[in-house]
Amino acid sequence: MTSGNVTTSVSDGSIVLRPGATLGILGGGQLGRMIALAAARLGLAVHVYCPDPASPAFDVARAKTIAGYEDEAALAAFAAAVDVVTYEFENVPERTAAVLTERVAVRPGARSLAISQDRFAEKTFLSDLGIPVAPFAAVDGVEDLVRAVETIGLPAILKTRRFGYDGKGQITLKPGFDPQAAYDAIGRAPAILEGFVPFALECSVILARGLDGAVEAFDIAENRHENHILKRTRVPAAISPETERRARALGAQVAHALDHVGVLAVELFLVRDAAGERLVANEIAPRVHNSGHWTEDGATVSQFEQHVRAVAGWPLAAARLREPVEMENLIGDDVDRWHEILAEPGAHLHLYGKAEARPGRKMGHVNRLKA
Amino acid sequence: MTSGNVTTSVSDGSIVLRPGATLGILGGGQLGRMIALAAARLGLAVHVYCPDPASPAFDVARAKTIAGYEDEAALAAFAAAVDVVTYEFENVPERTAAVLTERVAVRPGARSLAISQDRFAEKTFLSDLGIPVAPFAAVDGVEDLVRAVETIGLPAILKTRRFGYDGKGQITLKPGFDPQAAYDAIGRAPAILEGFVPFALECSVILARGLDGAVEAFDIAENRHENHILKRTRVPAAISPETERRARALGAQVAHALDHVGVLAVELFLVRDAAGERLVANEIAPRVHNSGHWTEDGATVSQFEQHVRAVAGWPLAAARLREPVEMENLIGDDVDRWHEILAEPGAHLHLYGKAEARPGRKMGHVNRLKA
Repeated sequence: MTSGNVTTSVSDGSIVLRPGATLGILGGGQLGRMIALAAARLGLAVHVYCPDPASPAFDVARAKTIAGYEDEAALAAFAAAVDVVTYEFENVPERTAAVLTERVAVRPGARSLAISQDRFAEKTFLSDLGIPVAPFAAVDGVEDLVRAVETIGLPAILKTRRFGYDGKGQITLKPGFDPQAAYDAIGRAPAILEGFVPFALECSVILARGLDGAVEAFDIAENRHENHILKRTRVPAAISPETERRARALGAQVAHALDHVGVLAVELFLVRDAAGERLVANEIAPRVHNSGHWTEDGATVSQFEQHVRAVAGWPLAAARLREPVEMENLIGDDVDRWHEILAEPGAHLHLYGKAEARPGRKMGHVNRLKA
Repeated sequence: MTSGNVTTSVSDGSIVLRPGATLGILGGGQLGRMIALAAARLGLAVHVYCPDPASPAFDVARAKTIAGYEDEAALAAFAAAVDVVTYEFENVPERTAAVLTERVAVRPGARSLAISQDRFAEKTFLSDLGIPVAPFAAVDGVEDLVRAVETIGLPAILKTRRFGYDGKGQITLKPGFDPQAAYDAIGRAPAILEGFVPFALECSVILARGLDGAVEAFDIAENRHENHILKRTRVPAAISPETERRARALGAQVAHALDHVGVLAVELFLVRDAAGERLVANEIAPRVHNSGHWTEDGATVSQFEQHVRAVAGWPLAAARLREPVEMENLIGDDVDRWHEILAEPGAHLHLYGKAEARPGRKMGHVNRLKA
């Protein structure tokens, strides 16, 4: 850590930041950038670590390290220069996390990373908590796959256990599929087969858990994906008050079980059948989440400020909806509409400062207030 | 300018920025910092120019220049590296502005600077527009001072024409004052004597004027000063709807007359007498203003984003009050209350990242929503 006068310790020895302390962020994409902006507003200095020299978060940070996540000397220097480390992505390599954790507080902690990095560990964890998930089975070869399909049925989704995002590393299996071709298609990596959930809508619960264990959940967000990438989020979600309540409780249960410190998202499927509405948990993201971007303009605190408060060891803010809101992701050349959006009443434009608008790349988002 | 593909020109040849362009900011204090944060959110790169190596705005900018405002080589290099220049303070030296204006668009422009830098020019300008001001007279020596007091009466305030802020460079004259001592006290600089206005309250109109001449005013702010430094702002102000309307119209009149581009504040006195409420203009600030900090949490757009939109040549956002709000400046060791404020429901804390809390120094502010 940089200096004793910018941190203090609470009774269990945990570090609490003071204004002027330095927050280290692993990852320099748009999530890191928005965490950095929130940290600056609260008087913290920011140091961003990312291998990509063109990282958008570098532009709003006091200090940057351009180095690989395997560069242990660079990691040690980073740990020495900051007071707390957080991250914008869950796929932090285990050794990277270990090198940092030996030297500095890393928040959220090791358990949040371990569970969310591996789809099989994640589903097992959720299931063990009594939280409904899709039927699932580990797949480590073609024979496993054939057996899993017999149990789970079709359609089903074959996913790599690790490193998937935005639909990458997954394939939908339908009757007549070729098991060998399917396993080849996901790179013959350790995988999981998941049963298909006939959901009525997708939603997510986003919450923060403080160093003291306090939990503050945002209103449940209703999400629409296009080409496996989040396209729109609206709040409030079209769900019953009872489902809203259960989603929040489920999120809190996950956060407590992980001993999570920071913002956390749980992606959920809502199933409607004769018995009413029920929730099926899909995925945990131990970080700020795209489906929480609406909070910047539609809530009493943004998910980014809430994350900073949590990882700094500060009290959380009350997270209330201010106005109904819809978030639209600007993907690829959607961003060419920037000028039109600026002129639109009630639209709040957020751009990430990325130079090149490649197809599928998240370039910005817009929050439209509905009041 | 950096590159043709990050700017375009409108019909009169004026530069309009595109996302990815670079905004240059003269001055690296908290106002520059908050402009930089708003610019980043809109996808602009920021380059801050300031002589002080410890400038808070440097921490959130892509590039910085540490050089004096008289360093013409540094100014030329800065002009070449950015697409538009704006500033956080009105006391930009005339030669500095001229060196930049020869090379790059400077917004707001020369007239806004010239009028607001000189209290005598400012009062004359307002008076010529038919806007009520305190009685005033130029004072260039002790004889002038004696003559001015005979005309204006006492109490009155003797102020330097240039470089005054937060009560610096001014002295109140009461019956029995010593003219020579008073003139000495303000450094024998070119001065102005202003009659005392028996105001019921102080308020300010903050508005933005776009490159196209469109004006968008925020709700009128009611201000309370302590030791000549703004301590609290509340919105809505305790004034009649008719006064609110007149204050907005007065602000727009000033902005149009200056051909101003950007945010502008006019500080006003409200006088209540037998005839009702009337407004007396006190001072023009051709920039974002401390009494507009409430807009970050209480309005549909912040004054900082609105300023960036204006100087970028973009459409302004609708500037509506979202919720009643009170802003408190955290001055000197007020900032020691940061943790308590973080725990306060409805309080939004903003800290400027300044290392040392000297008496009278603005360290941050808090916006308290009253809903």
